[in-house]
Amino acid sequence: MQVDMGAVLKAMLVQMEVLPGRPAENTARILAAIDQARANGRELIVFPEMAVPGYLIGDAWERTAFLRDCEACGRRIADASRDLTVVFGNVAIDWTRRNEDGRVRKYNALYVARDGAFVRPEHSPREFVIKTLLPNYREFDDSRYFFDLRKLAIEQECRVEDLVNPVVVAGRRMGCILCEDAWDGDYAVSPLRILGRKGCELFINISCSPFTLNKNHKRNRVFSAVAQELRRPFVYLNNVGIQDNGKTVFTFDGSSCVYDGRGNQVATLAPFTDGLMSCDIPTGGEAFGTPVRLQDDDIAMVHDALAYGTRKFMERCGVARIVVGLSGGIDSAVVAALYARIIPPESLLLVNMPSRFNSSLTRGLARTIATRLERMYVEVPIDAGVALTTGQLDGLVVASLGGSHRTTLGIAPGVLENIQARDRSARILAGIAAAFGGVFTCNANKSEMTVGYTTLYGDLGGYLANLADLWKGDVYALGHHLNEVVYGREVIPQGCFDVIPSAELSVEQDVEQGKGDPLIYPYHDCLFRSWVERWDRTTPEDILEWYGAGTLAANIGYDGDVARLFPTPAAFVADLERWWNNYQGLAVAKRIQAPPVLAIKRRAFGFDHREAQIGPGYTGRYASLKRRLLLE
Amino acid sequence: MQVDMGAVLKAMLVQMEVLPGRPAENTARILAAIDQARANGRELIVFPEMAVPGYLIGDAWERTAFLRDCEACGRRIADASRDLTVVFGNVAIDWTRRNEDGRVRKYNALYVARDGAFVRPEHSPREFVIKTLLPNYREFDDSRYFFDLRKLAIEQECRVEDLVNPVVVAGRRMGCILCEDAWDGDYAVSPLRILGRKGCELFINISCSPFTLNKNHKRNRVFSAVAQELRRPFVYLNNVGIQDNGKTVFTFDGSSCVYDGRGNQVATLAPFTDGLMSCDIPTGGEAFGTPVRLQDDDIAMVHDALAYGTRKFMERCGVARIVVGLSGGIDSAVVAALYARIIPPESLLLVNMPSRFNSSLTRGLARTIATRLERMYVEVPIDAGVALTTGQLDGLVVASLGGSHRTTLGIAPGVLENIQARDRSARILAGIAAAFGGVFTCNANKSEMTVGYTTLYGDLGGYLANLADLWKGDVYALGHHLNEVVYGREVIPQGCFDVIPSAELSVEQDVEQGKGDPLIYPYHDCLFRSWVERWDRTTPEDILEWYGAGTLAANIGYDGDVARLFPTPAAFVADLERWWNNYQGLAVAKRIQAPPVLAIKRRAFGFDHREAQIGPGYTGRYASLKRRLLLE
Repeated sequence: MQVDMGAVLKAMLVQMEVLPGRPAENTARILAAIDQARANGRELIVFPEMAVPGYLIGDAWERTAFLRDCEACGRRIADASRDLTVVFGNVAIDWTRRNEDGRVRKYNALYVARDGAFVRPEHSPREFVIKTLLPNYREFDDSRYFFDLRKLAIEQECRVEDLVNPVVVAGRRMGCILCEDAWDGDYAVSPLRILGRKGCELFINISCSPFTLNKNHKRNRVFSAVAQELRRPFVYLNNVGIQDNGKTVFTFDGSSCVYDGRGNQVATLAPFTDGLMSCDIPTGGEAFGTPVRLQDDDIAMVHDALAYGTRKFMERCGVARIVVGLSGGIDSAVVAALYARIIPPESLLLVNMPSRFNSSLTRGLARTIATRLERMYVEVPIDAGVALTTGQLDGLVVASLGGSHRTTLGIAPGVLENIQARDRSARILAGIAAAFGGVFTCNANKSEMTVGYTTLYGDLGGYLANLADLWKGDVYALGHHLNEVVYGREVIPQGCFDVIPSAELSVEQDVEQGKGDPLIYPYHDCLFRSWVERWDRTTPEDILEWYGAGTLAANIGYDGDVARLFPTPAAFVADLERWWNNYQGLAVAKRIQAPPVLAIKRRAFGFDHREAQIGPGYTGRYASLKRRLLLE
Repeated sequence: MQVDMGAVLKAMLVQMEVLPGRPAENTARILAAIDQARANGRELIVFPEMAVPGYLIGDAWERTAFLRDCEACGRRIADASRDLTVVFGNVAIDWTRRNEDGRVRKYNALYVARDGAFVRPEHSPREFVIKTLLPNYREFDDSRYFFDLRKLAIEQECRVEDLVNPVVVAGRRMGCILCEDAWDGDYAVSPLRILGRKGCELFINISCSPFTLNKNHKRNRVFSAVAQELRRPFVYLNNVGIQDNGKTVFTFDGSSCVYDGRGNQVATLAPFTDGLMSCDIPTGGEAFGTPVRLQDDDIAMVHDALAYGTRKFMERCGVARIVVGLSGGIDSAVVAALYARIIPPESLLLVNMPSRFNSSLTRGLARTIATRLERMYVEVPIDAGVALTTGQLDGLVVASLGGSHRTTLGIAPGVLENIQARDRSARILAGIAAAFGGVFTCNANKSEMTVGYTTLYGDLGGYLANLADLWKGDVYALGHHLNEVVYGREVIPQGCFDVIPSAELSVEQDVEQGKGDPLIYPYHDCLFRSWVERWDRTTPEDILEWYGAGTLAANIGYDGDVARLFPTPAAFVADLERWWNNYQGLAVAKRIQAPPVLAIKRRAFGFDHREAQIGPGYTGRYASLKRRLLLE
């Protein structure tokens, strides 16, 4: 069968939702798309990286039966490739070789199939293209599972370049790669440049790349420059859906696109959309189509990622009904407003759980939110539960039966706060959720999670923490976006933005007297961000150095005056150490037992922020900076 | 300064506890040991791998200030090396180079220092030895943080062999390596053999290797064979202490030792002991000393690892007081007996929380345990708490404020079971622990954790799950060991071994009528172990194939008759799918929010068993095996 050798390649891009660990389901989708491509007269169809097995599946990569299933699915795809070039990602297994620890050797591979057979890259004994650079940073773990091209080059005593070759199929000379997109450091052998030197009329990069705020722009700059440099069209294909590492749930935005040979992005699939796109691509390197403008509104992207990720996570877990504990504060208001858009009214239940410490202000706000969202709402007070618990425990005498050891328990104020928080979540919300046939949400934000300003089995409980990658300031911004753009009306009352953030667990946190959380969110958001999200992971040493030099606000992006927040260096140091001790101490223990976090940024808690219970360390240089500062 | 060039090397081995993330503290220990070695006339002192920074510290490896602190500590150690050869592990940083993702390049390094300076290995421009093979399997993540020798060989266009060279210091030619010990696969370039070809009078392997049941024997076989092959003495040095990846807490047993040139282990430091040992090592390859016999009793090793790990974890977290929920079943009995040996009587509180479903049998057993252990004990009934919750929720009408949506909640039997479990842990135990100034334990075992036969915020709560790497059968064995060896008397009454395991949350679980858990532990322990711990991670496909072939019991190590457990193939399949669905479904969600697990074996939950919420998948071949089986 001879294909059209004209200057235009009739391609179809399939930005599919890949279900991790579900080769049969993914393959059924792939086969259906192949049929559609053939019916549409396409000559090339492209699927994402790891389109058959999924990507983030943990140690399921070590299951022999699963691997054989993926192989069998790959063969079925090849069998379906009559008259059509099919490019797709799958795991490739070399059953004859084992890694240092006995695991069978596997590759993250790109397959090209045509007329029932896999097409070997030039000079390759293997039927697939191997991923060149395995990401092992951020949320990735690739070198745990896959053999990389560098090891192969050592084994074969050749250069990495010798192993990167074009695939020639149906007269087309294609440069096919799997490439983590965001980085282009100087040690990495760029497979695209190697392929460029070896001459290709088209480049295809299949990917499985999670959404990260601002990544799309960075990716676009890199790919645009590469397409321009190679003077050839460039296809980028990424999947949609969600995949997780257990604790951290990632959305995949797709954002698949085509660049012309001038580096312009000329066709694109909408983010978070499962769909396919036909595209006729001139292969001479000429300009074609109309340059696309990228989405630029950060908070809109955050909203879309959260709404998509939450909806997909519910699907994945088989959850249909949601209970939200609604305090009247901003966090739970935003969570309620998010869910009200993605599930039907009969599936959402808002629960206010007042105690004697809850103000009529916040109780009124909770009621207003429920009214404006028109969702089911109930008030379940916790006073009786708290009284029962304190009654059972306060003054309780505990003793060894021989009588040699004996003590009387008492309930301190801090203990009472946690008893309230647990009464709400573990007694009321968990019970209501089960009775309602659903689950309850965790409304914690990233500021609270960073320093463990939450109660285990209390407000840190829940099936998913979908705000846990947002700083408190981001939550306010999302609240405004929900009102102004998503709903187009004030579903979250202004009072939620105005009231002082407070847990309302004691008279010390009385919002009506302007008392609330110990966090100064505008400042602490910036401080914590520098610890958690900054490239170089700042520590108290850096912070103290900047404070001493008067550059702290500028270095952490705080637009206020640090000196006005802390009257003395001693007060500054006390605050710094208080929160660093929490971040590295008890907050780690809490995060270990926290619900899954929906990731939207660099360094979401969990797999992109791996941590051990090492406690709060301080460097030698911190100690001397502190000494000098406090002596001054 | 000239050293003794005789046939005997006066060495000191320092099996120290390394505190992860605490370079200053570790360095102080190292400097003190150096002083002691010098006072004892030693010429060589050896410390473990990563003795300065610790090893399992998560992304703290990315903190610039921390790295500089480690460098400064390393210099202080070199400064202290007058008249003495000091071998120690530290992170080495190449500040001039960055990885593909922008992180600064780091090595897991071995330093040799003498007379105030670091000694370069032969032909090396670097002042340190680089770890050859970075483990990236099981709980390890080395290639996330460290640059490996293979990448370096590619960069320098040389062979790995060219980069592995002896260190010559004070006239001694030493082969120094950092080597993960358990594996010796065929692709791995063995640094010891390379060094052997290059001629050394002594080999030193510094390590930071967690305790794993049976690993010591395997390690001993490998090292004994290597020492024999090289015909030279071989020093293995490993640290003690605990280090964790967050969810998974590993003990380090040390078990440092010296082999003579005939492959006999002739000197050893006791496992889990912080200490140092002087050893005069003849370097001619001759036999010396008396061969050591390795500890062989598995359950004794398990006990020692659990007791040590629990004690160290309490220290690490700053926890002094412990509350154990004591049901009268075997799991909590074993936990209570473990703690009673490692903390003083006034720091342990045992709490029985009966409901109307708890038998007088188990309540009596709980009381007996407390009496025999002579520890503080209290009964706090949960009936009032459960009645309050069901009273508040059962029949509760929830409605939207406009009235358009409305439903009435009801408490189903399964919901009531979980309400009880949460009432015990999140209301009573968490409150009591706080009032007592301590924490409460999670008593879940590995069988329950595998299939999520636990309640979130209920019996799955707690600060540490120290039995969570033991199958139910292992818990019984540990109970017998505690009685017979550790205590030498029956602290755990025979009734705890005899009573049917039961959660006692409903009349369906009435132990006095012989009713209990739905798990057939002797069989399911074996089944689950094959899923979780087996090398090839079996799946229902493998299980069904073996069942059909009549080889299941033999393949999973079950010593009963599977056919007698399940009257029909359909019953077998229903049981298999029930538990596989749980293991891969809800149990994953529960493990994400579970307490830290104390690891003692291969594939402890957490970092050695990475998993995603992918749900229960079945292969195509499983489906056809099942079809065939059920049609027969």
